[in-house]
Parts: sequence; structure tokens; C-alpha cells
Amino acid sequence: MRNIRLTLEYEGTCYAGWQAQPGLPTIQGALAAAVKAVTGTDVKIIGASRTDAGVHAFAQTANFKTESSIPIQSVINALNSKLPPDIVVKGAEEAPLNFDSRRDSTGKTYIYKILNRQCPSALLRRFSWFVPQRLDAEKMREASGYFIGRKDFSSFKAADSDAVHSIREVKSIEILENPDGIMEITVNGTAFLRHMIRIMAGTLVAVGKGKLKPEDISCIIGERDRTKAYATAPADGLILMKVEY
Amino acid sequence: MRNIRLTLEYEGTCYAGWQAQPGLPTIQGALAAAVKAVTGTDVKIIGASRTDAGVHAFAQTANFKTESSIPIQSVINALNSKLPPDIVVKGAEEAPLNFDSRRDSTGKTYIYKILNRQCPSALLRRFSWFVPQRLDAEKMREASGYFIGRKDFSSFKAADSDAVHSIREVKSIEILENPDGIMEITVNGTAFLRHMIRIMAGTLVAVGKGKLKPEDISCIIGERDRTKAYATAPADGLILMKVEY
Repeated sequence: MRNIRLTLEYEGTCYAGWQAQPGLPTIQGALAAAVKAVTGTDVKIIGASRTDAGVHAFAQTANFKTESSIPIQSVINALNSKLPPDIVVKGAEEAPLNFDSRRDSTGKTYIYKILNRQCPSALLRRFSWFVPQRLDAEKMREASGYFIGRKDFSSFKAADSDAVHSIREVKSIEILENPDGIMEITVNGTAFLRHMIRIMAGTLVAVGKGKLKPEDISCIIGERDRTKAYATAPADGLILMKVEY
Repeated sequence: MRNIRLTLEYEGTCYAGWQAQPGLPTIQGALAAAVKAVTGTDVKIIGASRTDAGVHAFAQTANFKTESSIPIQSVINALNSKLPPDIVVKGAEEAPLNFDSRRDSTGKTYIYKILNRQCPSALLRRFSWFVPQRLDAEKMREASGYFIGRKDFSSFKAADSDAVHSIREVKSIEILENPDGIMEITVNGTAFLRHMIRIMAGTLVAVGKGKLKPEDISCIIGERDRTKAYATAPADGLILMKVEY
């Protein structure tokens, strides 16, 4: 038995998210089909992050066990030849048999992109949230500081989250404004609840618009109540950049 | 009568190019339809560059004449509300009646993007040419020097070019290698023949692969024969960045 670890890039636009669901196109499902086409057997693909419908990945980590004797250097090309063009295997290596890409992950970095200018973008429309109202990045930076640390993020999780508890650690949040009105919110943490980064992004945008004060974030976290935070930001703006081990 | 000058961004993937053609989706056609929906009349849209099928624009310039009294500050939102999401009006201003975005242009800048790494990209696939074989950027830079100047570019024009003559001036070519294997060829010149930049890119890639020597470019230009240059690079990699006046 071998355990093969993959690095994946994908555009989530046309998928119902990472997790396989009957009758729906998913990243996990497409990958399992490609592995089956190459190895001839059904496998369980484990992914570090169960990205939501529409969310993208620059570098997701996944792994699967197989009896196949395919040389490791052939895995990338073999899988890419079976995958649709919006899912790409960028790396493949042998991993210890006990490696589990989800359980063993020690940290993840996501970027949430906001297009903050008067007109939308034809080129970035699949990869950003278009917010035409001018945002105050300095206020958003101030607000983001309240997220840092090990806290109960119940106010920032999807209603259907199946997590055992809601304590997560956010290690850093950086907010950059690029030319052409692109704002990038880079979030690093040990792990995240379902929708957590998108609810954080939606709430930070409320601060940027002046609907909330930066210090209100502290109260919202304290309430431990999803209804106290702002709306979940659209999936298009979110991209998984890196998984740490 | 007013002359309205527009700045446009578009993703060319789903279009048969700039120029209106019966029964085919085109940028010029979509824009004319949007202007008609807003002003109620048929207009002729003039574009600085007649971009090919599949070619993108970060900033194309166009203009049209109209009797409409729509306030100039409403033009952007009015047109964007009628345009599909892959075509966006980024700017609109009143221009002198004799302004012609095509005739008056004094220079254009294009970027041709090559993904030069072993595996393709899910995120950049619509905006780059995937070339897995390692390219020698230094040799390509040396080769690009032979294109600079006012020359007869007959070897670098489409067979169906309708240009009166083939003399064009290339002012600069810059070749940058970014992380993740993205190579950007930035070309600035007064004007370009049909397919000229894509044939230049295809020929530079032949140099990068070692199929041609940098100095061969000089002979190919001298031959004034399209069959001497290499294949036209795919449209996906090309983007019109800027039009000068």
C-alpha cells in the first residue's frame, strides 16, 4: 500500500465545492474519478480543506491510498490527462502511510479578494467580490486585529457547521490595497470553521463602509451568535493559498 | 452631435474578436447593442485595436457618435447594465468630434503571457499559453532585440492581413519571468499587423526552446515571408494593456 500526497490548483466556479455529493460536480468527485481512471480502483481522497462551492485553490493538499505501482513521477501527467482543465495536479509525492492531509494540517492561508472600485472587472469577475462603495482600509485593518488569537468563533460560522466546537486560532490578517482597486485580505490560522473567512470578510466590509466600528468586532465575537455578524461574502473572492504541516 | 470615448476591459474567450461579424458574438457587436439599448439608435463603434478571437483587453479605447443627451457620468453604469459580465466599460468621457480611437492612436502596449512550467494552471488557463518545455529567457531577450525599430514585418503578419503595407515600428520588448513559471512578454509599438505579436511570440518561443538562434530573427525579418517565421501563438495569452494618444 502507498499513500500519495497531491498539491492541487483549481477554479471552483463550476463546482459544488470540495466534498463529493451525489449528482453534483465536486472537486473530490472529479479527482476520485481521475484516480480511478489511472489506477483502476475506487479510492477515498482526503483534502486538507473542504472548500465551499465556488471557492478556488492555488495550492490545496490532498492524499489517497493505492496499491497501484504507477511511478510517482508519472502521477502528475497521468491525473492531469484525466482531469478537466479547471482542476490541475501541481505536485505528487510519496507520503508516510499514516499521513492524513486533513488531520495533520497545522495551518492554512487564504486570500479574500475585493474589487473596490466604481466599475466591475471583466478579467477578475470570477476571482473577486465587486464592492463599488469606497472602503476604509485603515478601519478594516483596525477591525481585523480583534480576530487575532484563539477564540470562540461561533458568530462566524455557517448555521450548518458540523464542527465539534467553535474555538479556532487566527494567527494573522493582512489587508493590502493594490492598484486598480483590488483589496486583498490574507488570513492565516490553524484551522477555520465553515464559512468563517467569508463571514469575517463580509463583516470587515461592513466596517469599511462605516456600518460598524472596528471595536464592534470584539462584541460580535463575544456574542457567540451567527446573527450578530454580517452576511457571508461571496465564494468567488476566496482562494486557498497554502496548507502547512 | 457628441463623440463619446470609452475605456473597455474584456475577456475575449467567448468572442470571435473585436470586429462585428454577422451571426457571431463580437465585442464591437455587443457594445453596439448596449449603446443602442441605452440611446435608442444604431451607432458605429470604432475601436483602437481590432483584437482577434480570444484576445483580451485590460484597457481598449473605443468611441462612438451620438445625439443622445445622456449625462457623461451616467454612461459607464448605463452601458455596464446592458453588457454581459465579460465586457466592462471602465471609463467614459466627451471627446472632440474629430477624435477617432483607431486613426489617432500613437502607440499600443500588449502583454503576451506564457505559462512555462511542467503542469498547466487551472486559474490562468484562459489568460496564458502553456509551454511545458523549459524556455531560455536570456536567449529570447537577445532575440527580441532584432524586432526593435521601424521594419517591414511581412514575415510576421497573418496571411489574410488587409494592411496597405507591412512597415511597423516596435519600440520596446521586455521579457519578465515571474514566480510560478509565468513569463510575460511586454511589447510596445506604434501599431501592429494582424497576428503580428502572436507570430512574434511563437517565434520567440522557438528561440527559447533552442529551435532557432537569436540572430535567426534578423534573417526571418529580412525574408519578408510569413512561412519563414514560426506558428502563431494561441490567442489566450494575449492582452491589450494600453492605447496611447
